[in-house]
Amino acid sequence: MKENADGGKTVTLKDLARELGVHPSTVSRVLHSGSDVAKGAASAATAKRVRELARKLGYSPDPQAASLRTRRTKLLGVIVPRLSDLVLAIMYEGIDEASAEVGYSAFVMNSRDDPEEQRRKIDLMLARRVDGLIIGDAHLDGGLLQELTDRKVPFVLMNRRVPGYPSATCDDVVGGELVASHLWEMGHRQVAVIAGEPYASTAVDRTAGFLDRWRSLGGTISDDDVVWSRFDTAGGREAGEKILASGRPRPTAIFAVNDFAAIGAMGALRSRGLTVGQDVAVVGYNDTSLAAELPIPLTSVHSPMADIGRTAVKLMQAVLRGENPPPERLEPTLFVRESSAARAPAEMAAN
Amino acid sequence: MKENADGGKTVTLKDLARELGVHPSTVSRVLHSGSDVAKGAASAATAKRVRELARKLGYSPDPQAASLRTRRTKLLGVIVPRLSDLVLAIMYEGIDEASAEVGYSAFVMNSRDDPEEQRRKIDLMLARRVDGLIIGDAHLDGGLLQELTDRKVPFVLMNRRVPGYPSATCDDVVGGELVASHLWEMGHRQVAVIAGEPYASTAVDRTAGFLDRWRSLGGTISDDDVVWSRFDTAGGREAGEKILASGRPRPTAIFAVNDFAAIGAMGALRSRGLTVGQDVAVVGYNDTSLAAELPIPLTSVHSPMADIGRTAVKLMQAVLRGENPPPERLEPTLFVRESSAARAPAEMAAN
Repeated sequence: MKENADGGKTVTLKDLARELGVHPSTVSRVLHSGSDVAKGAASAATAKRVRELARKLGYSPDPQAASLRTRRTKLLGVIVPRLSDLVLAIMYEGIDEASAEVGYSAFVMNSRDDPEEQRRKIDLMLARRVDGLIIGDAHLDGGLLQELTDRKVPFVLMNRRVPGYPSATCDDVVGGELVASHLWEMGHRQVAVIAGEPYASTAVDRTAGFLDRWRSLGGTISDDDVVWSRFDTAGGREAGEKILASGRPRPTAIFAVNDFAAIGAMGALRSRGLTVGQDVAVVGYNDTSLAAELPIPLTSVHSPMADIGRTAVKLMQAVLRGENPPPERLEPTLFVRESSAARAPAEMAAN
Repeated sequence: MKENADGGKTVTLKDLARELGVHPSTVSRVLHSGSDVAKGAASAATAKRVRELARKLGYSPDPQAASLRTRRTKLLGVIVPRLSDLVLAIMYEGIDEASAEVGYSAFVMNSRDDPEEQRRKIDLMLARRVDGLIIGDAHLDGGLLQELTDRKVPFVLMNRRVPGYPSATCDDVVGGELVASHLWEMGHRQVAVIAGEPYASTAVDRTAGFLDRWRSLGGTISDDDVVWSRFDTAGGREAGEKILASGRPRPTAIFAVNDFAAIGAMGALRSRGLTVGQDVAVVGYNDTSLAAELPIPLTSVHSPMADIGRTAVKLMQAVLRGENPPPERLEPTLFVRESSAARAPAEMAAN
């Protein structure tokens, strides 16, 4: 026991640990952590013994040690694939605003979807003592997330989900379904998908939602008509060119899982002398501010991007309280515009 | 003098200061700073006395104090108005990559161009011990920058310049001139400018370059045809609507100082049944990846955005070495596309 500032004696964690014959970190976890974190730190019996002795000896947390453990820097670290993806930039703005409302600040870094870079940036943020991480670039394999869980780093996912972790996303399966139903109703029967990156739930869910609904409506689509791609304009153009150069019947509609990729596909169509909305329908995803203003306005699935960011902050607060909040999937809405407002060309629909 | 770990005596800064009758911080600045920083810390004579005594007494920097002063966190803080402005997001990517190449990392925050928020975010970054700041949201009044200079915070400007400070920007005056020459040559005589925010050098320089060249070519343009606006799509649409609702002769060409604002103006034109590139030419600025892919490809001034970010990192390194590097203005290039490739409508050109 050591003397405190008032000259009295203070019971420390070490005193408790010595008395109980356990490691001080065990005592610390039992006494200082939320129940979720304490799980696994000690058996229920040990935890009970620790709490009883602490009460008996009048233990109160060492102010300095407690401050080290519970000190909030009120800072959140945000990792995204690329801020030049407007979708992520807007989610970050939702985070930024919601954080400020609860007295937090959030800074953000790019990982370029490179696993090594993800790891490096996360370590850097933790070294800066962020209270928690909002991860916008999760890969479906989830390896890094398991590691963070093992290290007891508070985090939530945003934009992309991985089953088993708290996440704030758009309901991307529903979004894909909306597009399939719309194109089917407009008479399209020959379609292609610019599917995004196969390691991202956004890409996988939107594509799966589309394909499942399409097939359930009686549609057919070959694997060759699903082209995985980067999410940006250049990626969309490449994928569009690949679809148009395939030698198979030209699709009457293309669904790109990202507005920027859709704009790239529009460029590929224009280069071949095809008019978007007349020769080929195009549908994007996210309904960025650009979509409605384009010379040929783009049909797009509205994803509440800023709200997804705000929801991530709400989940983060729950995690910091020691809770394990369930994933939240926000509702998408389809906005039909000129790029897909006309019926499918008759000769194609007759196929 | 205090005892060091080996039991010997160590000369401290305080010893030197006492002996010389000056404040310890004066001694510290003379001995630990680059010459630029030391300037003003002491007269040349005092600095000489400090250095001589230090040599005589065998002073070597207190390891801990020296580490506090010279420790590099290898972290840069980047402040931008909004990451949802693709231009800033791409500049940040240039910073991110160039930083990594020299062993640095860079994180970024939004200020929303709000002076209070700028201040708050800067303080937060400094509290996180960044080595320096890259400021992408400088306001022309420069108040905050003088304050940072007084506090000896290492910083450089990017994207926007303020005279007297190191900065990496596009040569925005030249960019505006290129647009004026192009529209004049295409036969336009009635033009309008969507000018951006009046506190940003990007807006002011691009607009001034345009107006000066336009007038030197013999053109006239009323103040009412220069509409200040936000830099984004919604701001461009509003400004476009204002121009079209002015009641004065409709312009045959609109120059928007930002691609997103130009896309907003395209939307305003389309809503009035006007065809971009036929009824009204539109020119943007920055040549973002979208410009070339739009259904009506957008003429735009190419600004080397990623290179501007990279240049900011180069300047930052010079500042951290104690230098005061001159501003760098990178060369813009005009890319003419369908949105302004046709001659001005004859009846308007005849005005």
